[in-house]
Amino acid sequence: MNIPEHFQINSKGHLEVSGCDTVELAKRFGTPLYVLDETRIRQNCRDYVAGLAEAYPDTQVCYAGKAFLCRAICCLMQQEGLGLDVVSGGELYTALKAGFPPDAIYFHGNNKSREELEIALQNGVGCLVIDGFYEIELLNELLAGKEKRQPVLLRLAPGVEAHTHVYTRTGQEDSKFGLAINGGQALQGVKAILNSPRLELLGFHAHIGSQIFDLASYEITAGILAGFMAEVRAETGFVAKVLNLGGGLGIRYTRDDKPLPVREAAKRTGQMVREVFSTLDYPRPKLVLEPGRSIVGDAGVTLYTIGNIKTIPGIRKYVMVDGGMADTPRVALYQAVYEAVIANKAGRPAEEVVTVAGKACESGDILIWDIPLAAPEPGDILAVFATGAYTYSMASNYNRLPRPAVVLVAEGQRELIVARETYEQIVANDLLPRRLCPQNERVVAEG
Amino acid sequence: MNIPEHFQINSKGHLEVSGCDTVELAKRFGTPLYVLDETRIRQNCRDYVAGLAEAYPDTQVCYAGKAFLCRAICCLMQQEGLGLDVVSGGELYTALKAGFPPDAIYFHGNNKSREELEIALQNGVGCLVIDGFYEIELLNELLAGKEKRQPVLLRLAPGVEAHTHVYTRTGQEDSKFGLAINGGQALQGVKAILNSPRLELLGFHAHIGSQIFDLASYEITAGILAGFMAEVRAETGFVAKVLNLGGGLGIRYTRDDKPLPVREAAKRTGQMVREVFSTLDYPRPKLVLEPGRSIVGDAGVTLYTIGNIKTIPGIRKYVMVDGGMADTPRVALYQAVYEAVIANKAGRPAEEVVTVAGKACESGDILIWDIPLAAPEPGDILAVFATGAYTYSMASNYNRLPRPAVVLVAEGQRELIVARETYEQIVANDLLPRRLCPQNERVVAEG
Repeated sequence: MNIPEHFQINSKGHLEVSGCDTVELAKRFGTPLYVLDETRIRQNCRDYVAGLAEAYPDTQVCYAGKAFLCRAICCLMQQEGLGLDVVSGGELYTALKAGFPPDAIYFHGNNKSREELEIALQNGVGCLVIDGFYEIELLNELLAGKEKRQPVLLRLAPGVEAHTHVYTRTGQEDSKFGLAINGGQALQGVKAILNSPRLELLGFHAHIGSQIFDLASYEITAGILAGFMAEVRAETGFVAKVLNLGGGLGIRYTRDDKPLPVREAAKRTGQMVREVFSTLDYPRPKLVLEPGRSIVGDAGVTLYTIGNIKTIPGIRKYVMVDGGMADTPRVALYQAVYEAVIANKAGRPAEEVVTVAGKACESGDILIWDIPLAAPEPGDILAVFATGAYTYSMASNYNRLPRPAVVLVAEGQRELIVARETYEQIVANDLLPRRLCPQNERVVAEG
Repeated sequence: MNIPEHFQINSKGHLEVSGCDTVELAKRFGTPLYVLDETRIRQNCRDYVAGLAEAYPDTQVCYAGKAFLCRAICCLMQQEGLGLDVVSGGELYTALKAGFPPDAIYFHGNNKSREELEIALQNGVGCLVIDGFYEIELLNELLAGKEKRQPVLLRLAPGVEAHTHVYTRTGQEDSKFGLAINGGQALQGVKAILNSPRLELLGFHAHIGSQIFDLASYEITAGILAGFMAEVRAETGFVAKVLNLGGGLGIRYTRDDKPLPVREAAKRTGQMVREVFSTLDYPRPKLVLEPGRSIVGDAGVTLYTIGNIKTIPGIRKYVMVDGGMADTPRVALYQAVYEAVIANKAGRPAEEVVTVAGKACESGDILIWDIPLAAPEPGDILAVFATGAYTYSMASNYNRLPRPAVVLVAEGQRELIVARETYEQIVANDLLPRRLCPQNERVVAEG
């Protein structure tokens, strides 16, 4: 295992992140534990902002909250000057509760509810990213009688789909998101928004995929969008002020992933968009990017305690940890691959190849297949890398396992930003119809 | 769509379950809403108990809580005289908080923590299902100085794996669960338990898979276990009092699934085990089954409200609902297929084939591909069948969506057994380090 660049091994041979010994973090806060490196998150934010600014005159970087959101992260993004993407009433509520400025919030979603739109409008959300005709109608209804126009973007389906190392151009876009440029729905959508006295169209949005390494897919997309913008101007006179290319930049999960450094990727993206517009006689719009995974993903490491170890002679050694698919669902969901080390043996070479299994009562709860580790023993702390994105945000209470705490570390400081769930919280919403359970509540001895 | 047998269509043409109009349930409790049919659950329980008793002298049916657990369900299982399987401290806590008798609880798990075992021991859990040598050591340590012996089963890996319509016999069992009979680890485990002055071995457990339709896999397994029991007796003199064959009986998700009726399946399983032991000179053990999905699965229906509808001419019509992969993760996890009707148009024939998409900001959030429905319109209520198991229990807050409420219906009565999550609960564990967010909390206007 080559340890990611922003981790160290300290004098005890323990894995260290931003000045904090992960073995001590596990001891202090318990396991499973999500650890987020604040230094790394801020560096990723700054690399995005600086890289983009180097190449393009007018830019905004918005953090896509679905990757990992809690109040503290909203505050951190605000301090770094980023905008925020939310995709639901719950994410919006979190941001507002953290005091995030509503005018720097973009609200996405393919099926925003009436209630969610009402909350957004009442709290002055800066920009709604409209996803179709139904939403235009709903907004016209909700905004009837209001004085101010609501700024919006229109989400487009550009017919480009990116997957990790490749992209495909589909003639027709079969997606639940956005209005297709091909076939004319997008243009119809533009006209419907321009015809509304309550909506102010700022420009366009597209998001083409996740964990993308091939920047050419952004260039193709920018070209298609710019072409559409020129078409719209010719047809309606409308000139877009904003071009939002979404997120999707890939991160390093394993040694096989070789993403460009964030700053370089942001800069090249800016250059590509600049070049696209330099060939068109069209005023350069503000360029917005919405990274999520590439801001927080590689800043995360999850700590587990190893318990049961089962050796099946000649077959496999299972090393079992105190979490699994409930806290890290990407393996079961997408066959994702993670790398890991034993935090208290981080200085030692890997000695055996084992399979790390979760504790959920399900055969499919395997965390990492066939990973080389320094000889694991019960009580060891396993550190799984690149778990900052789509872990806590997707975590469940499957098997009624409490969700882990999240600790933020920064140059030796360590503070919880999400408290560990308790058993009491897990039953908090359970209601007992009297006819089902007439007897008194039992007192539970808690360990 | 042929509607499952225990649903009706009422005079308004609405889908009805146990005397409750689902459209009214959606109106009263909001959507997404998990609905559980108490009548059906009780019938499934009784069919298991009666079917098994018809064929076998000494039996116990335990409900596998991981399929769906909350306090009310524990009470219901207690009223039906079932035992309970738990697989974690959280499930155990739920059962104890519901007043479930601890001596009727089996505690499973491939990596029970010290804390979980302590809670189990302190609360007098009836039977621990030991999963390996590590747990034997841990229990010997925790029970040191205690007077009473702790009853336990040993989980075996029988080398049989069942998948829906087929089973495979693997010479060697590559599983995180149990000790393999082949190779001698299981026998070693028996000896370690028999050598412990603190453990009382009751017998053996095996669980061979999920959503099983071919009962032959249980027969094969019972045969292997009985053979092992005879070998153990010859080697050690130990005679097992309990044979626990786990769960796994399949249910009808779609018209392609044709499970045996529960009572018939239970009866045949009892007969098969009886026959296995009739050929051996071995005292018939108590037979324990642990159904989860086949108790609650077909008793569940999830109600959604349809919002955005997107037609891509010549390609596909997307019908979008107010939930999705966060409340029903089996589609994204296992490519599970569900059937559905429009509850307020249940009497009408299906007119078009559409794709039902969830609201999560993720292309993968598709609930049902290509399903024929009566012409869907915004505001319609979509009822998805067979969602009683592995939906609420696996639900997440992905996109910070609040988890739905669960309502229990019984012959016209309807009572919430799990309250809908609130936005406040979603941020309840968020902590704000002062250095990150010095400003005061903002007041959020709530819709």
